[in-house]
Amino acid sequence: MKNILVIGAGRSAISLIKYLLDTAEQKSWHVIIADYCLETAKKAIGNHKNCTVRKLNININEERIELIKLSDIVVSMLPAHMHYLVAKDCVSFKKNMVTASYVSEDILSLDQDAKKSNIILLNEMGLDPGIDHMSAMKVIKEIQSNKGKIITFKSFCGGLIHPDFDNNPWNYKFTWNPRNVVLAGQGTAQYLESGLLKCIPYTKLFKKTEKITILDAGDFEAYANRDSNSYIDAYGLEGVENLMRGTLRKKGYCDAWNVFVQLGMTDDTYNLNYKNLTNRKFINTFLPENNLSVEEKLCHEFNFTSESIIFKKLKWLGIFDDTPVLNGNVSPAKILEDILKDKWKLEKNDKDMVVMQHYFEYMQSDQLKKLTSSLVVYGDTPKYTAMAKTVGLPVAIAVELILENKIKLKGVQIPTIEEVYIPILNMLENFGISFVEESV
Amino acid sequence: MKNILVIGAGRSAISLIKYLLDTAEQKSWHVIIADYCLETAKKAIGNHKNCTVRKLNININEERIELIKLSDIVVSMLPAHMHYLVAKDCVSFKKNMVTASYVSEDILSLDQDAKKSNIILLNEMGLDPGIDHMSAMKVIKEIQSNKGKIITFKSFCGGLIHPDFDNNPWNYKFTWNPRNVVLAGQGTAQYLESGLLKCIPYTKLFKKTEKITILDAGDFEAYANRDSNSYIDAYGLEGVENLMRGTLRKKGYCDAWNVFVQLGMTDDTYNLNYKNLTNRKFINTFLPENNLSVEEKLCHEFNFTSESIIFKKLKWLGIFDDTPVLNGNVSPAKILEDILKDKWKLEKNDKDMVVMQHYFEYMQSDQLKKLTSSLVVYGDTPKYTAMAKTVGLPVAIAVELILENKIKLKGVQIPTIEEVYIPILNMLENFGISFVEESV
Repeated sequence: MKNILVIGAGRSAISLIKYLLDTAEQKSWHVIIADYCLETAKKAIGNHKNCTVRKLNININEERIELIKLSDIVVSMLPAHMHYLVAKDCVSFKKNMVTASYVSEDILSLDQDAKKSNIILLNEMGLDPGIDHMSAMKVIKEIQSNKGKIITFKSFCGGLIHPDFDNNPWNYKFTWNPRNVVLAGQGTAQYLESGLLKCIPYTKLFKKTEKITILDAGDFEAYANRDSNSYIDAYGLEGVENLMRGTLRKKGYCDAWNVFVQLGMTDDTYNLNYKNLTNRKFINTFLPENNLSVEEKLCHEFNFTSESIIFKKLKWLGIFDDTPVLNGNVSPAKILEDILKDKWKLEKNDKDMVVMQHYFEYMQSDQLKKLTSSLVVYGDTPKYTAMAKTVGLPVAIAVELILENKIKLKGVQIPTIEEVYIPILNMLENFGISFVEESV
Repeated sequence: MKNILVIGAGRSAISLIKYLLDTAEQKSWHVIIADYCLETAKKAIGNHKNCTVRKLNININEERIELIKLSDIVVSMLPAHMHYLVAKDCVSFKKNMVTASYVSEDILSLDQDAKKSNIILLNEMGLDPGIDHMSAMKVIKEIQSNKGKIITFKSFCGGLIHPDFDNNPWNYKFTWNPRNVVLAGQGTAQYLESGLLKCIPYTKLFKKTEKITILDAGDFEAYANRDSNSYIDAYGLEGVENLMRGTLRKKGYCDAWNVFVQLGMTDDTYNLNYKNLTNRKFINTFLPENNLSVEEKLCHEFNFTSESIIFKKLKWLGIFDDTPVLNGNVSPAKILEDILKDKWKLEKNDKDMVVMQHYFEYMQSDQLKKLTSSLVVYGDTPKYTAMAKTVGLPVAIAVELILENKIKLKGVQIPTIEEVYIPILNMLENFGISFVEESV
């Protein structure tokens, strides 16, 4: 019997745990679910005989090491900065490890030691990063092995509300961490255009969007992510002229969100010094002082009318209401997040959706060809969300393949290698996670 | 004989040290100048008999404590985050201490212990913070003791080039830390307008300037500082309706600087990923890709012509040149600083200038009155700059007053108290640092 240790049993681990438990009996696995909160761990497993739950404080060495020693493979679903603690032990006790997070400098520094210990530390095995790598690499390899030269690669991903439950003017609800949505795009996006490095600062980001249509899921707009250019090396795209990764929202979201960005209401770097602030006073804080009403000032500042779609989106959020804002002197971003949390919350029966699209232009036999590879995944239930499935299932399948020695790689890895992505993409198709390729 | 320990003998300590040495014989002082670099310390004193120099690594407890024990009073001219190490020892060994830096949380936490040790930790004794507090408080107290009610308080300060050496299109040279000038204003400015909290994010800051005229020093423009509202409590201005602190530049600077801000070229939060970047390619990185020249794109983006003053300022910096930028993958802010360093550097004979102005509106006997209090200080020589004088002399005078028990305050203090600011402002007048009050 093989022991699988899963550390962290929160919402994003739910589909991962389900896969492991559904497969446990047949494969003779024992699954240990460890969480800081024992109740969270218990809730995650129901009453499965191939499973035990354990309370674990990750910072207590004895507790952590005891569990890792018991295991054949460790999955860390902890916040990214905590993986290193686990990874060091995995190297020491020669245990394989899988995470859904970006490879940090810390983790990368363990590469040689992991190879000496004959284990794999497999990271970026979720949705983004994860499925994005695997699905992009599959197409890139196909094009390159047919002597195509890739000129343009753009890749977009978004976690959104299922169309059947998409019933607010923003066409958006929080299907993922609200804080990350409020802070999204801060800093400067770097990408390639016509072979040249290009930078878009945060304050221009939501004005410079691309329109994208994905299968029958509808029309989207994409804003650029911070770090596109690191993908040249990661994906073997030397010589590519246009390269961009972006985040997807439904059409019209970015124009309205940009109002908050321009006003400075998404700033998280300082705390507002306030007393008795209401939503209305909060937005007024970022508008000039004159005789106009708050609504009129906003319209004037951005040159739209109170009949415009943007204004209606903003008004629907209640930003002109006299509701008191979050107590305590916190950042504008935190206040805004608190206002949005109520309005954009998932209702009890709501389901979510994950969309992804890669776009390629390449020269083959002196012809310019265009190709999209698209994915739409819907949540099964409010619990088994599209996000939980697309993050958790690749991790779970990787665990299976490592335990069965079908993935033989050692050291610090991400799934840009055929040995990993071919079998995983194939197995994901059984769960409705399959890409559709279309020539454009 | 009293021992005075000065830690840090860099450029900003030069006038402070001169004052102490000039006064040492008459007052029976011995001055110990300690610096990480012995040469810097030696250069600062010449060959004065009431003075010794010591090499000091501030992080080595034994070295630091030995010197502090020897002293009756300690002046720390170290970078602000290092004061706490010194202050803790001053509390332990019952030594008074003076700094020119803002009171940090760390330093503030020593207040009770300092009082128990019967010592003063006197901070914010430079120019800004320092002379700004003292000169503003003097006027505020005068107005309030004549039953005036202050409605508006604005306070502006700038370190600039002496008019006789002001010979570039920006009317600006680096008379102070270049890095701080490039990053100036990042975050969000908070101030009061008509009794309401107002916030201006960085990207609007340089568009929303005020025009200021200061005595015969000419026309300036001011952009708001981050933290105006904390001055309500500090200055006893409860009920004030308009409150702003700002930084001064010569007219036209902000419009041109705003181009870098809007493009994202002052961002210090990420490193650009570049090879063979030139000034010209650097700016092109932040402009859209099309068939226009870099110059044309810039003009188009900001809607000015190549004949405009802004364009001429930018071109003068060499941003369109094919000069290679700073080596190594660094932040845009760092590249820009490197470009500016050459162009805005002080020439060998250049002198600097410090300007400050407080503006008050207050009601007295049912009449609205307006008052300015203005300061212009010119550098004496390229070494004894206006900045060194205005930062160093208040510190030196405070040392004298504490040693002579004319300042009797204990605990963590800033110079908003009459016992401190009245004698210091009086003595500063002997050095040409005197404010001119004018009714408007």
